Amino acid sequence: MAHRIAAIAGDGIGTEVMPEGLRVLEAAAKRFGIELEVEHFDFASCDYYLEHGQMLPDDWFDTLSSFDAIFFGAVGWPEKVPDHISLWGSLLQFRRAFDQYINLRPCRLMPGIKSPLADRQPGDIDFYVVRENTEGEYSSVGGKMFEGTEREVVIQDTVMTRVGIDRVLKYAFELASKRPRHSLTSATKSNGISITMPYWDERVKAMAKHYPDITVDQFHIDILTANFVLHPDWFDVVVASNLFGDILSDLGPACTGTIGVAPSANINPEGKYPSLFEPVHGSAPDIAGKGIANPIGQIWCGAMMLEHLGHEEASKAIVNAIEHVLAAGPEQAPLTPDLKGQGTTQTLGKAIAEALES
Amino acid sequence: MAHRIAAIAGDGIGTEVMPEGLRVLEAAAKRFGIELEVEHFDFASCDYYLEHGQMLPDDWFDTLSSFDAIFFGAVGWPEKVPDHISLWGSLLQFRRAFDQYINLRPCRLMPGIKSPLADRQPGDIDFYVVRENTEGEYSSVGGKMFEGTEREVVIQDTVMTRVGIDRVLKYAFELASKRPRHSLTSATKSNGISITMPYWDERVKAMAKHYPDITVDQFHIDILTANFVLHPDWFDVVVASNLFGDILSDLGPACTGTIGVAPSANINPEGKYPSLFEPVHGSAPDIAGKGIANPIGQIWCGAMMLEHLGHEEASKAIVNAIEHVLAAGPEQAPLTPDLKGQGTTQTLGKAIAEALES
Ligand SMILES: CC(C)[C@H](C(=O)O)[C@@H](O)C(=O)O
Ligand SMILES: CC(C)[C@H](C(=O)O)[C@@H](O)C(=O)O
Repeated sequence: MAHRIAAIAGDGIGTEVMPEGLRVLEAAAKRFGIELEVEHFDFASCDYYLEHGQMLPDDWFDTLSSFDAIFFGAVGWPEKVPDHISLWGSLLQFRRAFDQYINLRPCRLMPGIKSPLADRQPGDIDFYVVRENTEGEYSSVGGKMFEGTEREVVIQDTVMTRVGIDRVLKYAFELASKRPRHSLTSATKSNGISITMPYWDERVKAMAKHYPDITVDQFHIDILTANFVLHPDWFDVVVASNLFGDILSDLGPACTGTIGVAPSANINPEGKYPSLFEPVHGSAPDIAGKGIANPIGQIWCGAMMLEHLGHEEASKAIVNAIEHVLAAGPEQAPLTPDLKGQGTTQTLGKAIAEALES
Repeated sequence: MAHRIAAIAGDGIGTEVMPEGLRVLEAAAKRFGIELEVEHFDFASCDYYLEHGQMLPDDWFDTLSSFDAIFFGAVGWPEKVPDHISLWGSLLQFRRAFDQYINLRPCRLMPGIKSPLADRQPGDIDFYVVRENTEGEYSSVGGKMFEGTEREVVIQDTVMTRVGIDRVLKYAFELASKRPRHSLTSATKSNGISITMPYWDERVKAMAKHYPDITVDQFHIDILTANFVLHPDWFDVVVASNLFGDILSDLGPACTGTIGVAPSANINPEGKYPSLFEPVHGSAPDIAGKGIANPIGQIWCGAMMLEHLGHEEASKAIVNAIEHVLAAGPEQAPLTPDLKGQGTTQTLGKAIAEALES
């Protein structure tokens, strides 16, 4: 049976890396006998907003619900539409509406990519950030008082629920069970954020009882960011609230030098709604239209999507093809300028598709 | 007229580094003809709590109010007293009660200290984090509902006020005016935290109008932490909310390899209440009692305190003495084990005091 994929390229370089992501996906599908049915949509982009006055058509929920997964490029172009409109009107809405309560991001030092950290080799850094993706600090509760006066005050609630915390913890513990090191790190700040974060800690302790084989530790977010830089080899699976996970899943890829190539998955683990796969990099208006955007983030997203759809072997083959081309280096492979090469978005996409076929 | 200093050593290695901090302070005072009157207090420590059932005596506010500054070691020993009791019962209470609304932390790559970042030299990294220190995400408003059930929910309010934001921005802009690069970076997350952080941005814009000579930029906290690692040379003065500042002022020193030697100042700029100076490192129970704790954080705090009290030359002399001893390296100077040397807390303190005298 074919998997139905909704492809949303979005803004800026999203529209350039999407075709390469699909090229490699299709090469993998062919090699492993997987049937993919891809349909393209132009909404969830700032151009769509400028034409229609909204980011999405009225029937977006029903339209997208019928797909098995959403393959997403990038959204946002602040000069056209303010971020809080474009993002809350698309990506952040998808996460909540499709109950994509897991945001999963691998942080891995890849061959051929220079880490900004001294003396780190591929293999030294290889962990996942599991981020809660629907509640917590990203709330819509709060407001402003004494507006326009000296006494002006703004309040925003962080809202955490037992259901919301437990389900992301369960996912993270299960993931840790499948990893060789069986280790899980919880990001907290219970020494300073004295109401919500102690509750988070309490739920971690309760969940840990069900996973006696997993080694659990916790760090306050301040020292945890420091340890990402000082001891990235300590980590295996890191679980965090929405905001802390947002921070750690940019910092982690930065430490591996892969912020331009890292993928992320917004997952509804029950499969009740489609999950969404998008590169960590944004729409990058500054380099859009030049054909030099690195397509690896989008391609790696394809690998995560295939894994989610049950095709682990095909997924691994894509990651291997990426590593193979990266390891060849800028002399041998058409790497894009950000990787010190002279390739283009297209030639790099093709090289990875070819590596996959051979 | 003598400056009256309250010395609170606190817990763990706080009690070991404090004498060295005072040793160097007194050497500086002697050389520059400054009169210091130091009084010691044993409260704000976990041992005090175990004996008295509270972290502070009832009259702590009046007692400490009469001092010109508080020279602080470290507080916290989780095996003796939970952090939320020891910290909210001392340090966090001082910050609010003495309206120390600025938390100032230098991030500087020092000679002789190895940065975990590749290819960075002293001079490449040299910036300040200015953290709001009394409100924001560290609030005491919120609570729990449906306790003990599946529907359990916890809520904590982030509270930001115009007064609270404007005064920390003003301090940061003033600091940027005095720095050679005249540049200020604001930490935000207005694309995700959609009520409080857009307000923060609004106040930054309003304040920037009064400082046309300062170049202002802003980054969302996720990519900002990435840029601390990728481009630490971009930053001069970084201003941030309580939580974001907490994170950045651990990450910044980590990037310069100085988390064990970095100082911090909790400042009430108006001088209505005493300011408090404490090293960034904590009480470090794991190495307490061994005499090997690095005293440089405490000594550097002495330099910040003297600057705050108006003795800029003496303050610079202390920093120079630290740099002089660090630059000598572990072969020539009695550096502590964390700096790959064979020195002790005492011998390193003495070496810095001697460097200052000569
Ligand atoms: C100990 C803790 C409550 C404190 C804080 O978060 O403010 C510390 O991390 C700091 O930065 O001084
Ligand atoms: C664009 C922004 C709202 C978003 C987030 O904070 O979740 C992004 O940083 C991400 O991590 O996907």
